[in-house]
Amino acid sequence: MNVQTKVTAIEDLMANAIRALTMDAVQQANSGHPGAPMGMADVATVLFNRFITLDPKEPRWPDRDRFVMSAGHGSMLVYAIHHLLGYDDMPMEQIKRFRQLGSRTAGHPEYRHAKGIETTTGPLGQGISTAVGMALAERMLNARFSDALMDHYTYVIAGDGCLMEGISHEAIDLAGHLSLSRLILLWDDNRITIDGGTELSTSTDQQARFRAAGWHVQAVDGHDKEAIAAAIEMARADPRPSMIACRTVIGYGAPNKQGSHDVHGAPLGAEEIAAAREALDWSLPAFEIPPEVTDAWRTVAARGGEARRAWTRRLGDDPQAEAFRAAFAPVDAKALDAAINAHKHRLSQDAPKVATRKASEMALEVVNGTLPNTVGGSADLTGSNNTRTKGMRPVSAADYSGDYIHYGIREHGMAAAMNGIALHGGLKPYGGTFLAFADYCRPAMRLSALMGVPVAYVMTHDSIGLGEDGPTHQPVETIASLRAMPNMLVFRPADAVETAESWALALEQERTPSVLCLSRQGLPTVRTRHVETNLAARGAYVLKGGAKRDVTLIATGSEVELALAAADLLAEEGISAAVVSAPCFELFEQQPPEYRAEILGEAPRIGIEAAVRQGWCLMLRPEDGFVGMTGFGASAPAPDLYRHFGITAEAVTRLAKNLQ
Amino acid sequence: MNVQTKVTAIEDLMANAIRALTMDAVQQANSGHPGAPMGMADVATVLFNRFITLDPKEPRWPDRDRFVMSAGHGSMLVYAIHHLLGYDDMPMEQIKRFRQLGSRTAGHPEYRHAKGIETTTGPLGQGISTAVGMALAERMLNARFSDALMDHYTYVIAGDGCLMEGISHEAIDLAGHLSLSRLILLWDDNRITIDGGTELSTSTDQQARFRAAGWHVQAVDGHDKEAIAAAIEMARADPRPSMIACRTVIGYGAPNKQGSHDVHGAPLGAEEIAAAREALDWSLPAFEIPPEVTDAWRTVAARGGEARRAWTRRLGDDPQAEAFRAAFAPVDAKALDAAINAHKHRLSQDAPKVATRKASEMALEVVNGTLPNTVGGSADLTGSNNTRTKGMRPVSAADYSGDYIHYGIREHGMAAAMNGIALHGGLKPYGGTFLAFADYCRPAMRLSALMGVPVAYVMTHDSIGLGEDGPTHQPVETIASLRAMPNMLVFRPADAVETAESWALALEQERTPSVLCLSRQGLPTVRTRHVETNLAARGAYVLKGGAKRDVTLIATGSEVELALAAADLLAEEGISAAVVSAPCFELFEQQPPEYRAEILGEAPRIGIEAAVRQGWCLMLRPEDGFVGMTGFGASAPAPDLYRHFGITAEAVTRLAKNLQ
Repeated sequence: MNVQTKVTAIEDLMANAIRALTMDAVQQANSGHPGAPMGMADVATVLFNRFITLDPKEPRWPDRDRFVMSAGHGSMLVYAIHHLLGYDDMPMEQIKRFRQLGSRTAGHPEYRHAKGIETTTGPLGQGISTAVGMALAERMLNARFSDALMDHYTYVIAGDGCLMEGISHEAIDLAGHLSLSRLILLWDDNRITIDGGTELSTSTDQQARFRAAGWHVQAVDGHDKEAIAAAIEMARADPRPSMIACRTVIGYGAPNKQGSHDVHGAPLGAEEIAAAREALDWSLPAFEIPPEVTDAWRTVAARGGEARRAWTRRLGDDPQAEAFRAAFAPVDAKALDAAINAHKHRLSQDAPKVATRKASEMALEVVNGTLPNTVGGSADLTGSNNTRTKGMRPVSAADYSGDYIHYGIREHGMAAAMNGIALHGGLKPYGGTFLAFADYCRPAMRLSALMGVPVAYVMTHDSIGLGEDGPTHQPVETIASLRAMPNMLVFRPADAVETAESWALALEQERTPSVLCLSRQGLPTVRTRHVETNLAARGAYVLKGGAKRDVTLIATGSEVELALAAADLLAEEGISAAVVSAPCFELFEQQPPEYRAEILGEAPRIGIEAAVRQGWCLMLRPEDGFVGMTGFGASAPAPDLYRHFGITAEAVTRLAKNLQ
Repeated sequence: MNVQTKVTAIEDLMANAIRALTMDAVQQANSGHPGAPMGMADVATVLFNRFITLDPKEPRWPDRDRFVMSAGHGSMLVYAIHHLLGYDDMPMEQIKRFRQLGSRTAGHPEYRHAKGIETTTGPLGQGISTAVGMALAERMLNARFSDALMDHYTYVIAGDGCLMEGISHEAIDLAGHLSLSRLILLWDDNRITIDGGTELSTSTDQQARFRAAGWHVQAVDGHDKEAIAAAIEMARADPRPSMIACRTVIGYGAPNKQGSHDVHGAPLGAEEIAAAREALDWSLPAFEIPPEVTDAWRTVAARGGEARRAWTRRLGDDPQAEAFRAAFAPVDAKALDAAINAHKHRLSQDAPKVATRKASEMALEVVNGTLPNTVGGSADLTGSNNTRTKGMRPVSAADYSGDYIHYGIREHGMAAAMNGIALHGGLKPYGGTFLAFADYCRPAMRLSALMGVPVAYVMTHDSIGLGEDGPTHQPVETIASLRAMPNMLVFRPADAVETAESWALALEQERTPSVLCLSRQGLPTVRTRHVETNLAARGAYVLKGGAKRDVTLIATGSEVELALAAADLLAEEGISAAVVSAPCFELFEQQPPEYRAEILGEAPRIGIEAAVRQGWCLMLRPEDGFVGMTGFGASAPAPDLYRHFGITAEAVTRLAKNLQ
């Protein structure tokens, strides 16, 4: 038997091990998706056996190849491979407990649940789009450092569903534009969706589509291992991102059900599993793997271990070693706090009147001058989001050494790419759009929160304060909808000082993403008395007034100015109003009850925010008042809108008097 | 001067009238986007002067051509044309009050603000995607009726931004797959985005992209009127949807600023306006139009009027006239209520235990058997969303006469298409996906709410009750995020009876869209005592117990069963618990305070919903309790999850006792 045939023969067994583990785990769980893992087992085996370099003993090795299962329902492919490679947290016990409470083998792969899972997938389109960010990070770090320290591939398996999702368009176009040569997408071209054959809902020529976006495209039989290998070789050599259309039979190996949409998302059943064992000549009982197959998979891991050790030696001798480690280290909170503090001190003296989007830019000047690896960007609103500071240079296909990304009109792709950049490590991304368009990014933002990836979303034009662009652009419910999301910090700073504090907090998060809701319109500095303490860190604090008060006015962002004006009007009438600024509800909710009670006080309260009231019961009791929006906005100059919707100091004053 | 030249000469003036009105209105408002209207004025003039058929005197004429300005920031193009055509609600006064409070000429075109605006645009990508729905509705109605009654075009102007947005991919693929021959997209190919030239962020070959999706593609000089006309002729003749790439100069006519991104979104300034007047040989003062230009535009309108009158005569003689009118009439609420009532009666007797997604299907059998024009669909989850009732036939390129749409994995495209179908009129759309993927559709759902388009979103698998698919699929904050949205009804029915009531309410809305949050898991019928009154219409009501109560348990959907179980446990301990079912918070909020107080009662209250607490202060006071979720879910069988997260009858019982 020649070497080629021997390789294929052992690879056949390696692939069938994936198939067996998949069908048995899904059967045991009585739940899951056997089709995609069984269909793509051959592709995955070739990929891992001949190409992917990673070390299960060092799953955080920075220069490892990245593998993303964008078709997240095919999670058993990932778990089977991880078990076979010998990840120490993926023993057979975990495979047996697929989809059970407390196991690492969740229905869809979850970041942090098990070593080697590069990103959470499940919602279609997210994996490919996150992988684009990883591949971009790789090229950017390669430019900053060297081939010796950063030169790896990012492989993605995606299905028809991922490629139908709109976000895939944004990701694919961005990758093509940036010529992400180290990105290789293997399309599980099985012509099956949940509703039936793909011809039910699509006629698109995917290969032509990818070519139109500047990708290198090939097509292979997804069960011909040599053809697969040859295609991956060509893909790796090509300077463009590459797509390999792998024509597969979904559920390959299940002789009666393969090729049908039944095999997509339900257990095969005992009968079909027995038939598959016969068809695949796989005679072992469930959850048992022949030693030669385990050996073959462990050889893959061992090869990766050698590569990783060689890399570590290279890093040790490299002149850039310290800079490299710094890039991958957590944010230097001490340095950042010091720089932000100095900035705050200057602001309290200069007391500028600036929009908080502009204040954000000012804070970013400090941030970008302090942290070595920030990467900014915007979804085509750079001048509006103020995300590009002096000296930032765009990243392009010709030059990856920059630090600013023009994401194009691709909010969702930007959010997912930022997840990918952050997950990759080495770079700290922030990106901007209009707050109203958080709706476009929401699924990716949810993944940021679910995974615990601390990206920073710069979201400007945060209320009716944006004026004439009108209700399609004016958030009224957006802030509430983001506050509803677990593990998401929503900042709405009142002035330049709070904006700086918010940035420090956002950047120092280790497991929580942040949204900074920033105004279009100019706002006065209200924090004119400098304190080193980050007051935004407590979520809400008393800006003016004391414990003795007739009414408490609680406001956020642009409405803090309004609250202060109302407090002045009330003072003229002998009513003492305390003003509380509440730049972050989530942080406030984490404070001890005594602190919260002290800040909010017992006196009547009025919440003031140019947005809906939902979410304000953190601050307000049923008897308290609220001045804000009850419906959508309108197109007019901002001052007209505030008057029209009754969000004025006069309205607050009247309400305060009524509550006395 | 030959005819051709005469036509072009007058068209030059017609186009320059658009340019003049645009630059002057934006200047007066000191706000707005002159670039796109000035750039596309020639294309729009040819389109309206030679092709589009509509009648400003009858803006709701069903067989009118539809025109959508997907590049919604270019709203002055729409307003200028409407003024010139003589829409009676678009006098020059409105043009002068562009972007002012209370005017019809909002910053972005708003549906219902002025006659002839077919859909609200502004958020990029929505217009083209909504237009796909309109074009689909046209073909479907053509199949149900005839060429004589329904045969019109849908024209869209879209820019680079729209074509970068992910939703455009979903829309374009769907249109190509369904071979929407009457859809014509004119791409404002000006190579400019906000951040600068398009080469900053994209390299995609748009023409190849459209071809890959099955469209007919042409490219023309966007300022060569004869070429434009020839291309539109070819597009109309082609059996595929057509894209015409119109190479334009953004801000054409402004001699110094045209072609640069400065002219995208800011007034030209007095100096440049004067220069443009010179360059265009347009000598009239602002807001004055030469009579021959007005005449030329009014001729367009008159032609449309003739076509509309001929159509009306045809309708009068047509054997299908009554059916046609019925299709375009409001929902027959009487008939629907009667049918739903009979259905409710049967349910109260049969008392089935069914998932509410299955109950929804049962209700839809009744709905689809009663209403003549419902159109169902799903984003590739037909079997899971239970949106296809017996006898429903898929719509395809070969046969538009069906009533079920396989939207593919395109949640956002589906939502926008449903908006388009509803806006077109004649068909009543509903469509399904998983509730967690409401996040993918959110921008289009927001437009449903903003425009007041009563589409119905069927959103199943609505909580941790879906089990093993895990946290990426389990909504916890989704319901709260949708409740925060103005003008959106969010139903979460407890059983088959409430589901039927929710459907009646959703379908009878005239200006409000609805989401039906439905369970994956089976639920018992709790409404075993039949009443004709639609109890869900009051938003919340007492299901069990009376005015005298020690505690009130308020639950929604799948948790109502749990509340009833807790009430039984409490009764055993001598504590009387009233159970309130709250299937729709928005409708409850609309009830008089006395009703709400009566339902909620004075006793301690416990809210129960497998979701976050945000939004529950409609029901709960600070001292009340809540049993639900505080963070993301997990992957495990549903019963394990309810126990794990403490959402059990026992937990409710313990809490109720503590609150005594």
